Amino acid sequence: MTKALNENEAWVVIKAGRMGHLGCIDHDEPYVVPINYLVEDGRIYSHSLPGKKISALRHHPRACLQVGQVQNDFHWQSAIAFGDYEEVNDAEKRTMVLRQLLERYPELTPVESQLAREGKWEVVVFCLRIDKVTGVAED
Amino acid sequence: MTKALNENEAWVVIKAGRMGHLGCIDHDEPYVVPINYLVEDGRIYSHSLPGKKISALRHHPRACLQVGQVQNDFHWQSAIAFGDYEEVNDAEKRTMVLRQLLERYPELTPVESQLAREGKWEVVVFCLRIDKVTGVAED
Repeated sequence: MTKALNENEAWVVIKAGRMGHLGCIDHDEPYVVPINYLVEDGRIYSHSLPGKKISALRHHPRACLQVGQVQNDFHWQSAIAFGDYEEVNDAEKRTMVLRQLLERYPELTPVESQLAREGKWEVVVFCLRIDKVTGVAED
Repeated sequence: MTKALNENEAWVVIKAGRMGHLGCIDHDEPYVVPINYLVEDGRIYSHSLPGKKISALRHHPRACLQVGQVQNDFHWQSAIAFGDYEEVNDAEKRTMVLRQLLERYPELTPVESQLAREGKWEVVVFCLRIDKVTGVAED
């Protein structure tokens, strides 16, 4: 049976995930893109080269991240976190986040890895300040 | 290297997928949820019990579906289709769509399967009339 997850249970799903689907709004149109991420202190961190996603988030900062865990067709959890987009501009914090992302996701594309290692400012480091999490599970 | 997919290539990814991430807008907030779907004549069909997703789509019909195919960390494709939400109310078409969904996804939850088999009107059958598809791939 499908059941709602409470806030703690939904956070467990989000923290355990490696990849989620970021939802944002681009000119009144929803836009969804898979991202790798880190969770720290109620914030979800990620990075990106500038592009459609970053433009959309800068214009309309409200966003969400959906994370799923699927053991099989009858046992799965899906959680979603909502929050406001914020860019990380502090050099020390940027470096720390990029380092953690690279440690966790060594498979990032060579271009991304290179830029991230060099701490190039072309790379946007951002977070969602989460203020709401919900989820459902079937078990 | 990452490259853009043309419209045909993006459709190939979408048609080959079994599960996608639907993006919609709920009270000016993005909302993302995984769905199973069918593609026919430039439309993406799915079904759902009434709830947050259907309420959001009825209020703000613009939506998208992101579909990913991942062979490994260095070979993947991601496509996204944008379109307007429309409910399928014709009884014959509803039955046909539900039957095809059940044939393709026998693992739908017992409740959903039961409702779908009985053609209960509680089940909302809907489509997105796609007018734009894009994608990226790494290979």
